[in-house]
Amino acid sequence: MAADLSRRGLLDVLGSVGAATLTLKAMGLLPVPIVFATAPVLPADSGRGKSVAVLGAGIAGLVSTLLLRRAGYQCTVLEARTRPGGRVWTLRSGDTIEEMDSTQKVDWESDPDLYFNAGAARLSHHHLGILGYCRELGVALEPFINDNRAALIQIDSEFSGEPQRIARLQADMRGAVAELAARSAPIDGSLDGLLRNFGALTKDMTYLGSSRAGFASPKTFPAAGTQRGKLQRPIPIGDIARVNEARILANALTFLESWNQAPTMLQPVGGMDRIVYALEKAIGGEVAYGHEVEQILRLGERAGIVSRDRRAGTIVRTEADYVVCTIPLPVLKSIRADFSPAVQHAIEQGAATYGAATKVAFAAAPRWWELDDRIYGGISWTSRDINQLWYPSHGIQSSKGILVGAYIWEDEAARRYAVLSPAGRRAAAIADGERLHPGYGAKVGASTSVAWSKVPYSLGAWAEWDFTPGARETIYPVLLPPDGPFHFAGEHMSYVTGWQEGAVQSAHYTVGQIAERVKAGR
Amino acid sequence: MAADLSRRGLLDVLGSVGAATLTLKAMGLLPVPIVFATAPVLPADSGRGKSVAVLGAGIAGLVSTLLLRRAGYQCTVLEARTRPGGRVWTLRSGDTIEEMDSTQKVDWESDPDLYFNAGAARLSHHHLGILGYCRELGVALEPFINDNRAALIQIDSEFSGEPQRIARLQADMRGAVAELAARSAPIDGSLDGLLRNFGALTKDMTYLGSSRAGFASPKTFPAAGTQRGKLQRPIPIGDIARVNEARILANALTFLESWNQAPTMLQPVGGMDRIVYALEKAIGGEVAYGHEVEQILRLGERAGIVSRDRRAGTIVRTEADYVVCTIPLPVLKSIRADFSPAVQHAIEQGAATYGAATKVAFAAAPRWWELDDRIYGGISWTSRDINQLWYPSHGIQSSKGILVGAYIWEDEAARRYAVLSPAGRRAAAIADGERLHPGYGAKVGASTSVAWSKVPYSLGAWAEWDFTPGARETIYPVLLPPDGPFHFAGEHMSYVTGWQEGAVQSAHYTVGQIAERVKAGR
Repeated sequence: MAADLSRRGLLDVLGSVGAATLTLKAMGLLPVPIVFATAPVLPADSGRGKSVAVLGAGIAGLVSTLLLRRAGYQCTVLEARTRPGGRVWTLRSGDTIEEMDSTQKVDWESDPDLYFNAGAARLSHHHLGILGYCRELGVALEPFINDNRAALIQIDSEFSGEPQRIARLQADMRGAVAELAARSAPIDGSLDGLLRNFGALTKDMTYLGSSRAGFASPKTFPAAGTQRGKLQRPIPIGDIARVNEARILANALTFLESWNQAPTMLQPVGGMDRIVYALEKAIGGEVAYGHEVEQILRLGERAGIVSRDRRAGTIVRTEADYVVCTIPLPVLKSIRADFSPAVQHAIEQGAATYGAATKVAFAAAPRWWELDDRIYGGISWTSRDINQLWYPSHGIQSSKGILVGAYIWEDEAARRYAVLSPAGRRAAAIADGERLHPGYGAKVGASTSVAWSKVPYSLGAWAEWDFTPGARETIYPVLLPPDGPFHFAGEHMSYVTGWQEGAVQSAHYTVGQIAERVKAGR
Repeated sequence: MAADLSRRGLLDVLGSVGAATLTLKAMGLLPVPIVFATAPVLPADSGRGKSVAVLGAGIAGLVSTLLLRRAGYQCTVLEARTRPGGRVWTLRSGDTIEEMDSTQKVDWESDPDLYFNAGAARLSHHHLGILGYCRELGVALEPFINDNRAALIQIDSEFSGEPQRIARLQADMRGAVAELAARSAPIDGSLDGLLRNFGALTKDMTYLGSSRAGFASPKTFPAAGTQRGKLQRPIPIGDIARVNEARILANALTFLESWNQAPTMLQPVGGMDRIVYALEKAIGGEVAYGHEVEQILRLGERAGIVSRDRRAGTIVRTEADYVVCTIPLPVLKSIRADFSPAVQHAIEQGAATYGAATKVAFAAAPRWWELDDRIYGGISWTSRDINQLWYPSHGIQSSKGILVGAYIWEDEAARRYAVLSPAGRRAAAIADGERLHPGYGAKVGASTSVAWSKVPYSLGAWAEWDFTPGARETIYPVLLPPDGPFHFAGEHMSYVTGWQEGAVQSAHYTVGQIAERVKAGR
């Protein structure tokens, strides 16, 4: 999931992380100690005789278990669902989606390419933790196309509502910005060459359009004979400024520059869940699936977990020296637990920061976005509720594919979609998609949707500490140290929230904490 | 090959294509008639009884033959080499590279991933001609990573010669440019939001650094616990301006914005020659390989071709109603031919515009650029002679790969490399590569190189009409109409020189010309 998109994007808009960091520094919260950039090294057998209850078999739970079991810890993994992965969830033909008030079945045809990453869907090249496990466990990776300049940006209030190619907006924006910059540039001309190159300016430092903006149609592309290519008229910068003010579209304009979204992006071949199944195999497969945690007890210095085996209907009690609790905060807040009051309060406040996020997927054949619109992978954006439309990065020029017809991470829109029935979401996503691709409704097939706010055992998309003023500085740190035997891990316990990498880094941090306690005899 | 890189890049630097077009307009050369955006539609049997000699089985020759044979033309394809593809050439274990004064054998291990696209190596998403043939002929495509923000830019004279991550230069350049632009922005503040977003500026419109610039090392990446990430200090814009002035590095800074290099880029799975072998199969495989054209004769209104069967040592005479001559101009200029004086002169002048281009490839295991440098695909740049270092887009996180250790399209540097022996090129490429990756020499294995200026039947990389003032306006048009029975096709006969797409578009144009003649009885 693309937390970075919203979070980091907003920070950039509000005044850059640089400024945020300076503010934090002024608050006395820096300098930052450097902890666990990579996996902690636990001596073999260092965990012998120690037990850990791992709550949740998502990335954080699986990675914690892998490291702990390798060091000789006895781990019990309790997972409420009947599958590993949590919000790493790949849907294929025949799969079932259960939300709190609806059940869907994926009814597109069975095909290795026809999968839908309903949750996590991409990996950054600097997500060294998760990439390391992919390498170690033999999960094949391929490029994920995050940036496609042929994809579209659409906004009802500009350009008569007509979608514009991203290349055109980008080129004309750069041209106009460079032209403005040239007026304030040093008179010695030392920046003139750079600005000309930056914005494709003329010798006299003006922008008159550029091939960078692309050509309107194949009939005006540079080709053979006398067809040299016909440039488009530059879009006025004022129009682009209005795009920038429209809901999420500021992100569309600079998305590719951000730390977590910049190329190279990657994906596992065959679906994101390849990672969790590889981890599940690596830990020996021992996960108690269908075990829903009902109580988290403090038993002296140890912990007790009361869970319910959903299929058998029985209650299971687990005792352990330590707990790695990876349960998302919106779920955890409602579980009876012997947490300290400060921790319980932090869990409740943290739960309130979670975004919603809804995705709608469509099967489609042929791949008309390639055939008709020459869009190969990447993302189109709209100011309408669907936020984004993703085109598949794999199966290029094959006969069919899965479109993510809505990836709604803007909270209000995601919640508007969440209350709709699956059929209602389909209709709404088609109505919005029509603005990007006329005739869309007739060009998409079977659909399915996932509203993360309504998925049991998730009840939200990811933590957004940086959206609630002060949350990162006052709430998050409360959950960092152990509360007696209880350690908290997951994407929410990181500075890379909404990404598998955050879950991995958090698992590393937490396992390191436990190892230190064991070493110190605490 | 990346003609666009140099050509379009230079145009941008010189004052944008926009300005160039305006200039051309002033010269009375516009407006442009629209010709053959897609393949001409030839009625079945429309070519019955007509014969065509196709000289060269590269992309232009193969595509021309495909269309002509489908319409019933009798085509004789003469190809001097023993393989199809011309400058589309994929090298694998055991292959032989013959230049005018050297012979190399590719001696890395045999493996489907270990191929080296010595010539054409990428496809743009808007190269609709070549993509159409890939679709029609079932050539599987995958993303080609052209933009990797973790890749490097190195310049001896700046940053103590230390390579810098592209993300950092890009972010700091944007920040500084936006900050400059803000000083000239309208006082009504209408552009403030856009400029803040564009450059990651603070509220008061200054750039203090940003997460967009990336973090120096995994120890300072945002992670878990209290590791929030430590920003880097912005690089002064003056330093970046000096990078912009250094040889080819201006291209490095804006490469991704250009028409032919902007994402999405694609490559055939398994090597670029998948396309030419699919075309060869589609035309029925009938190509006279090893037939070197020695004379091109005018026989009344028809044509005669005298070729030498290199293996048999015999002379072969071919008569045809028309000729599609795709022989590169540096080769064609030395062939005895009954061209008109104006055409012969244009061929000689066009030949002089060809660039050199040299590539050096290294096998390497493990993929240390991923393991040690977290570089997944993409291109690093240096002001040194190797120009670029390409990391493979396929086989991500597998055990080995082929690095293009030098892609030298800067003409002077390419010619300096061309005169070196293969061993000399290897040593020179390692010396330059050391600046990007210390210890490089010990980390690369078997190598091979191709200097296109010394490859028989090519004698150059591609036509560069736009580098020679007036060449596009005065020389290129001379070769557009047929010279009696002789039609000229190939990348050089297009506005997409250096790309397979140019060859395809030119083939479409030429086949269309022939079909019109036949229809009109000329």
